[in-house]
Amino acid sequence: MTQAELFDRIKAKSSYLCVGLDSDIDKIPQHLLQEEDPIFAFNKQIIDATIDHAVAYKPNLAFYESRGAKGWESLAKTMAYLPKEVFTIADAKRGDIGNTSNHYAKAFFETLNFDAITLSPYMGRDAIAPYLKYEDKWAILLALTSNESSKDFELLPVYDDSDFFNIITYKLYDIVIRKSKEWAGSERIMYVVGATKAEELTTIRKIIPDHFLLVPGVGAQGGSLEEVAKNGMNSQCGLLVNSSRGIIYASQDTDFARMAGAKAAAIQQEMEESLNKYCN
Amino acid sequence: MTQAELFDRIKAKSSYLCVGLDSDIDKIPQHLLQEEDPIFAFNKQIIDATIDHAVAYKPNLAFYESRGAKGWESLAKTMAYLPKEVFTIADAKRGDIGNTSNHYAKAFFETLNFDAITLSPYMGRDAIAPYLKYEDKWAILLALTSNESSKDFELLPVYDDSDFFNIITYKLYDIVIRKSKEWAGSERIMYVVGATKAEELTTIRKIIPDHFLLVPGVGAQGGSLEEVAKNGMNSQCGLLVNSSRGIIYASQDTDFARMAGAKAAAIQQEMEESLNKYCN
Repeated sequence: MTQAELFDRIKAKSSYLCVGLDSDIDKIPQHLLQEEDPIFAFNKQIIDATIDHAVAYKPNLAFYESRGAKGWESLAKTMAYLPKEVFTIADAKRGDIGNTSNHYAKAFFETLNFDAITLSPYMGRDAIAPYLKYEDKWAILLALTSNESSKDFELLPVYDDSDFFNIITYKLYDIVIRKSKEWAGSERIMYVVGATKAEELTTIRKIIPDHFLLVPGVGAQGGSLEEVAKNGMNSQCGLLVNSSRGIIYASQDTDFARMAGAKAAAIQQEMEESLNKYCN
Repeated sequence: MTQAELFDRIKAKSSYLCVGLDSDIDKIPQHLLQEEDPIFAFNKQIIDATIDHAVAYKPNLAFYESRGAKGWESLAKTMAYLPKEVFTIADAKRGDIGNTSNHYAKAFFETLNFDAITLSPYMGRDAIAPYLKYEDKWAILLALTSNESSKDFELLPVYDDSDFFNIITYKLYDIVIRKSKEWAGSERIMYVVGATKAEELTTIRKIIPDHFLLVPGVGAQGGSLEEVAKNGMNSQCGLLVNSSRGIIYASQDTDFARMAGAKAAAIQQEMEESLNKYCN
């Protein structure tokens, strides 16, 4: 999917909501456990209930891998079920040398046909390059994450001594964005920026005015949608805001799908208001 | 497996060789493609041929994931086939928030019963903590990797301004080691240090004299075993040196297993000499 197509879909649905499919066998409603594939049965109903309000879906790989081969089957069925017009993100946070990354890219972009994958930037450019070769596919790099320990490394000051007379320090996540934006344009790379770091979004928008940002952490992790939209939105929206637990576990009873749909609709309403306010 | 048990096995085999199972359907011998599960058939013969010379095996997840659910089945069968006394490493390079990491830990330490998993440190302590709760299991953190782009971020100078009168800069990988060694001891954490960075091993050994290091990059990537042993070995060996392509693709013909065994035996010989020389 191209950047323009993604923006078209955001306008069509007045929504930049991404639904996180962190589908956990221990948390889905009990009555689904008698289904042949409970995780797929759950995802199917969540998708049906939220599809009018969401532009993107993001399965979190950990929840599928913890079930082994049958988890991968649930994931493949979920991908086949998702309509072509939604943007699909493999939340996999991979990152390895080129030869290995070629195989991860094949796994997620070819075998499973995702539009995008989340990646860790730690190993540098050659770990990311294999994903950038795919036309209309996206590498979503971790920049500033929503967890408390993002301060351990992501927020450390890094020392740029390339100009002796003008030594500058940047935070590590800032250097990650500055360097990686030279590897490919806003048609190939997005960045993860946690909603709990809304104050940093203003800084980030100065470095990358045009890129899409994938923003987790609204809801369960405490981020504010209004703050994210105010500081992070650009003229092409430029935001995909993810909610996982807040939507998919809105109820853990037989009404789970209806409640998930209601929750997604409420978020979409807020998003419509913020699009009218800030996307211009 | 405990650190003492691992050292016992190294002594018993006079080897600290880890065989990397980067088993690629496009590179395994043609005649195996008629098997029901070609990847497992390949791994089985590689394991049989190398088991006397190796203490550890490291399946690289990308090569299994690129085959979807059937890749995970090959992996599960490989894990079931490996004898209990070998040390098993999931080369997965995961790294995510705590709630998600719990599920990855479950996938690799419980469902697949690996002894260890490789992890990216980018997101900080809370992304690693869930793996450290498992007794006799190991988190192997990326520190300084063997790829050229390790210079993009891992080698950047990070600025420690906690003491205004004594400002020090460390390389990022160095800070990763210094901070993370406070999260758990040498019984729970190992570090990835590429063999192509043998000169940095001396520095690293000053920070973590007791930890095991997982060293890829000998062979195909150009690192020298003698240099690694000289600079990196400690009194409990403290090294697992990985070879993947150099062993498993020593031949791509029907003699592949015999050739892989011969290659592993030759490396084990070199390792025995270096153990006699430096492990004391």
